[in-house]
Amino acid sequence: MVDFVGVATQFATWYYKTLDGEDRSGLSVVYRGHSMMTFETSQFQGLEPIKEKLGSLPFSKLQHCIDTLDAHPSGESGSIIVLITGKLLIDGDEHPQRYSQCFHLIPDGGTYYVLNDIFRLIYG
Amino acid sequence: MVDFVGVATQFATWYYKTLDGEDRSGLSVVYRGHSMMTFETSQFQGLEPIKEKLGSLPFSKLQHCIDTLDAHPSGESGSIIVLITGKLLIDGDEHPQRYSQCFHLIPDGGTYYVLNDIFRLIYG
Repeated sequence: MVDFVGVATQFATWYYKTLDGEDRSGLSVVYRGHSMMTFETSQFQGLEPIKEKLGSLPFSKLQHCIDTLDAHPSGESGSIIVLITGKLLIDGDEHPQRYSQCFHLIPDGGTYYVLNDIFRLIYG
Repeated sequence: MVDFVGVATQFATWYYKTLDGEDRSGLSVVYRGHSMMTFETSQFQGLEPIKEKLGSLPFSKLQHCIDTLDAHPSGESGSIIVLITGKLLIDGDEHPQRYSQCFHLIPDGGTYYVLNDIFRLIYG
């Protein structure tokens, strides 16, 4: 039995460490040609558009902090649905913003890729 | 091409209307024997445990308001991943709580059932 929460935690830890680091281009290894990403109100489909978006985020410094992470098996195939809620500091701002992000991870040769990625800030 | 956002919006509207109404037992029609639900820190697997949980929520009056709803196709099969963020008024409280909820909807004979349901309140 796969440890779904363990896999999802390991993935999310790596993902945010890379996103918060100096070279975000490393994130593109987890997307594929048929991956979809929603970032706030914008949608991106395919590896190149997603790479381009992640590479052009208008923030020089991000700092994610996971508050909750839940993971379910999403079918027979070993896929995993992950829901994360957390806080995000942007460009050294004092006040963190809340966010929620959902990933759909698909097993692929001993690792996982992201089929679906939906990110939303939580206002108010 | 299926209108994924349209299906997800119709589903979520019905789901919260039923959950906010006087008879929550109607929700059980969208779960199956292999469905999984996370409600805050508790996990439930299977129709009976989910029915029991939804039927015994310790709130007499709920009022959900959707702020954002995003939906992606989750594979070849017509399944849909939905991420909702919104506000929730509990028992007439003046201050709404923020929440985030993820559904994985699976097509089934002209309708959809919920394979995965993850609900989290957002604190702070």
